[in-house]
Amino acid sequence: MFIRHAADVPSKTMDMPGAKHVTMKLLVGRDDGAPTFAMRQFTVAPNGHTPLHKHNYEHEVYVLAGDAQFVSGVDGNTIRPITAGDVVFVPANEMHQFRNVSTQDVKFICLVPTTFDCGSACQPTPGSY
Amino acid sequence: MFIRHAADVPSKTMDMPGAKHVTMKLLVGRDDGAPTFAMRQFTVAPNGHTPLHKHNYEHEVYVLAGDAQFVSGVDGNTIRPITAGDVVFVPANEMHQFRNVSTQDVKFICLVPTTFDCGSACQPTPGSY
Repeated sequence: MFIRHAADVPSKTMDMPGAKHVTMKLLVGRDDGAPTFAMRQFTVAPNGHTPLHKHNYEHEVYVLAGDAQFVSGVDGNTIRPITAGDVVFVPANEMHQFRNVSTQDVKFICLVPTTFDCGSACQPTPGSY
Repeated sequence: MFIRHAADVPSKTMDMPGAKHVTMKLLVGRDDGAPTFAMRQFTVAPNGHTPLHKHNYEHEVYVLAGDAQFVSGVDGNTIRPITAGDVVFVPANEMHQFRNVSTQDVKFICLVPTTFDCGSACQPTPGSY
């Protein structure tokens, strides 16, 4: 068991192609012994965005602060506003992106399974360790 | 994919023995198609508490608001203050309880795997549906 404050967790720049002005804190991950899912906190600065992409595992998101655009749809052509208290469920293999078109930081919690693509052997999910 | 605001999700009283003044909102659950883990939001009113208990699956918790006591230890004799932004990881089979000894509501997100006890067949985790 542990307690840690999000403010004390080191922040890493998300250097994935398509990401801009995004940082991530791994709040609970594989190295903590999380067996099933990992909790991350993302901050998207003004004019920033996460990649418009999809992958073979789901996201569960809770928006903590700020006003963002959530982008979805096959071609990323559906844009909806999200704000603090909004919950977003992104199933596996669906396109998604978070954009900050406001003047303040957007912060959200985003969880992923610790493993995915469990055909012959499970793979560690990116961002879960 | 869906977006829903936590304020729009119905709240249920937690009637488990040992719970007092606790309500839960299932933000993302099994019936939403969540394959791996479920997101719930709990509110503990002043003088309330969750059960002091343990179970065969983990919790990952993010405190949204309020000041609480987190109780742990074999006999529940370790008490630590937690506040907004604190993250708590409770591994399987560890005693835990959230107590509100303040005058304002405590709110936190608490995630569980959607299944547990996967010996011969997995069981749906309580509170994940």
